[in-house]
Amino acid sequence: MSNIVPKGWEKEIAQRETRVAEALRQAGADAILISGNANLYYITGRVIAGYVLVTAQGEVKHFVRRPVELEGDNVAYIRKPEQIAEMLGSVPGTLALEYDMSYADIMRLQAAFPGAKFVNGSAIMRSVRAVKTPFELDLIRRSGVSHAMSYKSIPHIFSEGMSDVELQVELEHRLRLDGCLGLFRISGQSMELFMGNILAGDNADNPAPYDFAMGGAGMDKSIPIGANGTIIKPGMTIMVDACGNFTGYMTDMSRSYKVGEVGELAERAHRCSVEICHKIAQTARPGVAAKDLVALAEATVAEAGLADYFMGHKQKAGFIGHGVGIEINELPVLSARSKDVLVEGNVIALEPKFVIPGVGAVGIENTYAITATGTECLTNMPEDLQQLM
Amino acid sequence: MSNIVPKGWEKEIAQRETRVAEALRQAGADAILISGNANLYYITGRVIAGYVLVTAQGEVKHFVRRPVELEGDNVAYIRKPEQIAEMLGSVPGTLALEYDMSYADIMRLQAAFPGAKFVNGSAIMRSVRAVKTPFELDLIRRSGVSHAMSYKSIPHIFSEGMSDVELQVELEHRLRLDGCLGLFRISGQSMELFMGNILAGDNADNPAPYDFAMGGAGMDKSIPIGANGTIIKPGMTIMVDACGNFTGYMTDMSRSYKVGEVGELAERAHRCSVEICHKIAQTARPGVAAKDLVALAEATVAEAGLADYFMGHKQKAGFIGHGVGIEINELPVLSARSKDVLVEGNVIALEPKFVIPGVGAVGIENTYAITATGTECLTNMPEDLQQLM
Repeated sequence: MSNIVPKGWEKEIAQRETRVAEALRQAGADAILISGNANLYYITGRVIAGYVLVTAQGEVKHFVRRPVELEGDNVAYIRKPEQIAEMLGSVPGTLALEYDMSYADIMRLQAAFPGAKFVNGSAIMRSVRAVKTPFELDLIRRSGVSHAMSYKSIPHIFSEGMSDVELQVELEHRLRLDGCLGLFRISGQSMELFMGNILAGDNADNPAPYDFAMGGAGMDKSIPIGANGTIIKPGMTIMVDACGNFTGYMTDMSRSYKVGEVGELAERAHRCSVEICHKIAQTARPGVAAKDLVALAEATVAEAGLADYFMGHKQKAGFIGHGVGIEINELPVLSARSKDVLVEGNVIALEPKFVIPGVGAVGIENTYAITATGTECLTNMPEDLQQLM
Repeated sequence: MSNIVPKGWEKEIAQRETRVAEALRQAGADAILISGNANLYYITGRVIAGYVLVTAQGEVKHFVRRPVELEGDNVAYIRKPEQIAEMLGSVPGTLALEYDMSYADIMRLQAAFPGAKFVNGSAIMRSVRAVKTPFELDLIRRSGVSHAMSYKSIPHIFSEGMSDVELQVELEHRLRLDGCLGLFRISGQSMELFMGNILAGDNADNPAPYDFAMGGAGMDKSIPIGANGTIIKPGMTIMVDACGNFTGYMTDMSRSYKVGEVGELAERAHRCSVEICHKIAQTARPGVAAKDLVALAEATVAEAGLADYFMGHKQKAGFIGHGVGIEINELPVLSARSKDVLVEGNVIALEPKFVIPGVGAVGIENTYAITATGTECLTNMPEDLQQLM
């Protein structure tokens, strides 16, 4: 009797364990000890407080602190990580640990496995998770459907005189009613986001502390990102970029809206963004280098004479797209210096956006799966600069 | 011309810098290099991508990667942390680094300061932040007022036939409309929460992966906490425990509700929780040991014969209260093994709760400031087990 892997996930989890074991062999590691929530969710189908050991031979052991009532041949309850080495009976020669976890935690784990050599398990898990299984793709696809459905409410929840933050709160409400789980998983400790952002007018040009094309000043210096209370008025564009985590696996999607007339430059930049997405969607396939897609985007922007506004104005982002799955910032990275090469099963969010001073942000963001022969768009809804009022 | 510290925060930040310098001297450290968002917010009044160096002599330097456009005599832009030692000209003898930050980041910083001795800066900052300034207290007080105001909507947003998650989404909406910033800052990487939880009926007894008295199964295994879709029905209690981050500094508050009659045991346990809060509010003052307050709570519970249900039923939490401020889990900790002793300026959330099988969770949670002579409750609203329907 085992209940640690959720019902219906058994085959999938077995397949993931095999993938991790394979990655360990490729990295020359004998085992990995997983303790970060995103990786725990990946390798068990649930989040626990504890550790999962996967060996290069594909053996798996769960060392659980909480919750109570989990069972299985490979489930053992522990109070502290020091018990793990003891329970294993032997220490792996080379043990991968998640170097994205805290220094305090990793130092403690290293001390608990005397004599072992340690390698970076975060990098190993990141490379495994960059290639989605059909099961994962289906969860992302389902998020995409709900994500688009929620966005379709935007013209209906908007009313004249609203501020950006009021529109954002109503969209958050809509997303949650439609089943969005709310939590926005981000790898690393530097970025903090709530449910995503709505940027109206010139607030898009307020630089963020993150590597974002557009920031927004936020409502408080403690969370200096996103809506800042701007009243939405004619002549402004509004960029909506909210989290689509409906299934534990998320899509990333942005759509832009306009109020009244916003001028030729904004309209042209928006069309350029859509064009870049379409070009990349037609070009991307297994074997294509991420940086070549960035070059394609930049060439299209240069040809349109829009480089000053591309990926930010006062402050520019260093990428035009990123992998997405359990977390919003997975591999591959679509930046000029990226060494990533696309493979089947990658899921990428592509966000070639522009900030037009005095008007606001324009452009779109879609999430695409890399298929055997090309791409599949997972965030399907109209891409034009939609009239909000 | 300096704009890195927000207007009106200059004196306050200077005072905090002095406190950190003092703590460094006490810890025998020459300087601390801060890079975690919560500590960056504490020491600058804003979140940046970068580092703030504070020396034991009270000198402060800001090394900023993003956002652009920050200025000041002590502001320098960097691309990478390796530039810091170079810009300083000399390496501090003993440098405190936040050991709660990732292993990868801390190893990189250690390599960038060759010859330095390193100590745990997270512990230093945690001890400084445990004692709030009057300025911080005021921000927490303001969160408490809004927090209570939002909770007062609960009977109005509830309607017959609602599920726990529907009530939760409506409360989240209310909180956001009332100015809640949404983001729920938690120290460490293990706990993931959205905006807090509503637990109805027996879902409260579903154990969480966290050290919580009550968990809830959640709507998805990827976020196994909180509401699980339970339809709220007569005979159930409903525990509301949502985040009160309205100012960057939060309050923690829970209230319980009942539908119809819920039985003598639940009513009695609820009254016991209120009694414990009042007893502790009357007992707590500077110099009192946290563990003595826990003993007081446990004695009250034992006398009432409610130990089986106290702080959880299937799974029990290891604490009855915790410090709160920028993050939800600050010092002091109110656990049986805590060595913390209360001082003026501590802000504690006290949550002596019960889980009654077949009924649900009861009890309250308040946030209190420790004053020179006692306590000040910062979450003021009726504490009885309120009738929802």
